[in-house]
Amino acid sequence: MIRAGTQFDPIVVVDRYAEEEGSAVREAMLAALPPEEPVQWLLDPMQAYLGRPAKLLRPLLCIATGRILGSHDSEVLPLAAAIELLHNQFLIQDDLADESTSRRGAPTLHLDVGPALALTASVGLGLHALRLLHDSNRWLGPRLADQVTHEFMSMLRRTLQGQATELGWIRDKVTDLEPHHYLEMVALKTCWYTTIHPLRIGALVATAGAVDLDRFVQLGLHLGTAFQIQDDLLNLEGEFHAYGKEHAGDLREGKRTLMLIHLLRTATGDDRRFMDRYLSMSQAERNPEVLAKVLELMERYDSLAFARAYSSRIADEAERAFERLFVGAPPSRDLDFISALVPYMIRRRR
Amino acid sequence: MIRAGTQFDPIVVVDRYAEEEGSAVREAMLAALPPEEPVQWLLDPMQAYLGRPAKLLRPLLCIATGRILGSHDSEVLPLAAAIELLHNQFLIQDDLADESTSRRGAPTLHLDVGPALALTASVGLGLHALRLLHDSNRWLGPRLADQVTHEFMSMLRRTLQGQATELGWIRDKVTDLEPHHYLEMVALKTCWYTTIHPLRIGALVATAGAVDLDRFVQLGLHLGTAFQIQDDLLNLEGEFHAYGKEHAGDLREGKRTLMLIHLLRTATGDDRRFMDRYLSMSQAERNPEVLAKVLELMERYDSLAFARAYSSRIADEAERAFERLFVGAPPSRDLDFISALVPYMIRRRR
Repeated sequence: MIRAGTQFDPIVVVDRYAEEEGSAVREAMLAALPPEEPVQWLLDPMQAYLGRPAKLLRPLLCIATGRILGSHDSEVLPLAAAIELLHNQFLIQDDLADESTSRRGAPTLHLDVGPALALTASVGLGLHALRLLHDSNRWLGPRLADQVTHEFMSMLRRTLQGQATELGWIRDKVTDLEPHHYLEMVALKTCWYTTIHPLRIGALVATAGAVDLDRFVQLGLHLGTAFQIQDDLLNLEGEFHAYGKEHAGDLREGKRTLMLIHLLRTATGDDRRFMDRYLSMSQAERNPEVLAKVLELMERYDSLAFARAYSSRIADEAERAFERLFVGAPPSRDLDFISALVPYMIRRRR
Repeated sequence: MIRAGTQFDPIVVVDRYAEEEGSAVREAMLAALPPEEPVQWLLDPMQAYLGRPAKLLRPLLCIATGRILGSHDSEVLPLAAAIELLHNQFLIQDDLADESTSRRGAPTLHLDVGPALALTASVGLGLHALRLLHDSNRWLGPRLADQVTHEFMSMLRRTLQGQATELGWIRDKVTDLEPHHYLEMVALKTCWYTTIHPLRIGALVATAGAVDLDRFVQLGLHLGTAFQIQDDLLNLEGEFHAYGKEHAGDLREGKRTLMLIHLLRTATGDDRRFMDRYLSMSQAERNPEVLAKVLELMERYDSLAFARAYSSRIADEAERAFERLFVGAPPSRDLDFISALVPYMIRRRR
């Protein structure tokens, strides 16, 4: 691809695309919420949450893929909105379960409106996503709408499988993990819903099912994995800057990140014994001193560098998958966006 | 109807029907869960939750209605299972949001497996309900399956509206409520999902859409309202017996029940001022002494008797609606079950 070697700042390309295309996604999401009572307790929390600043990577990837393969925006946009609505549902629920305190520059929704109204709003957002799927019948016809719904349900199943795996590792203090376990978990938890599914839905609608959707799995896997490793790295940097502040970061939760898995496999002697103690602690016992020590070990044992190198190799793979997938596609802003997503995933700061 | 005046114990009739027909519902629910990894963190919690003792009123009402109107069990059973799966999803989520401690004779799921795995399991149960709806295409055909899905989504919207209304009243300390506000809220929160929807789905499938579904709203409204008032009364009796025990009952939550609304409208002087103080308290401030005093006032101002009389009148209405709806239907165990549901709703002890 001509784009791969040229000079461009992927952060700028992605942000500009989001700025130019994001408002249509926001409008489609808001249009999916019917103006129903009780406005102040059901509609307002949903609308306010959708109004928070968001990257919108998932719906934008879906739209860009659809356009490259020849779809009209009107066919894909409601499904892209459904993807982001479901994402919002999961964010609200995850924040509640993790007792997180802030999200998208504001208090988490359960702190804002209380846990019960937050859960109700989250289920509402999921329901309106399903209504969009159901309605897609009207413009996609029954056969294609059926395939779309099937794709959404497969994606949701995998997401839950990945989520349950990650949570189970933490709850049952599982430590005998290797990088491939992490990659398999992230493929389910993150990649399907963040990248593979948006690519497949865009392609499915654009080609009316005439393309082999499995061709999009490889790029999605690499993109999504790079995204998640960077997410985990950024969360650790948050830890560096957040001492003294009560917050529930990955280290406090005990999330099995690539860095933690690397450290558990390389630390020896007292360091290894310290890590075993850390893993057996409750979240409350993981005080700032403990977390600082874990971070210090991650630096000393090069676990952060290991994850960065891993993620960089995956981004290289993503670039090759991108080129294989879109070879011959005429230049376009949409193609530039997906091309920029590859380096963006490992360079983004938020 | 011949049954209305004859001697029979509605509790026995309902319990026996549940015993005889319940296992098919349980099997259909379990069959909807694919045997997927991670078994111990995703499948096991869902299966274990479905294995708890449950009344199964919603799916049984759906099946009985379908049979009376001529459906085969194989057509209705998966949809009845979907109704109960969604009910389980809501129970898990409500218990988490309300910080309830026990459900169906065991610790609530979030206390059992942790909030995050409980939420994941709840979303999984909801997803498998949707998969049943989606699959119903295969035996109902696209047109009828489409109507069924539409019914489910309408029901879910109304349920969320009612739920948000009740939660909003509590959060914003709304006090200027009259019985009709309660009835409107309960129609949305309880009746659609507990009685109207099961009746409509049974009828829709049995008649392939050839019956006016709105004919089933009246019976469902009365049955569901009687069910909810009895639920609220039983919860208060739980309060009577649970002092000294930490639990989150309706009084502690400040739920706007018919009894509370009656008391707020009739209490005067110091009693009214006490009630205003109670309403402005946090849940933690509502200690056993405070709750005992509210209960005492409900006794003194005849709020409990008011609710019981209300519920009894609604049961009479339900009986008339039942007779209008099923006039001419040949005698059957299924008809006996629905007939018994009317008095059951106000006499049940659990």
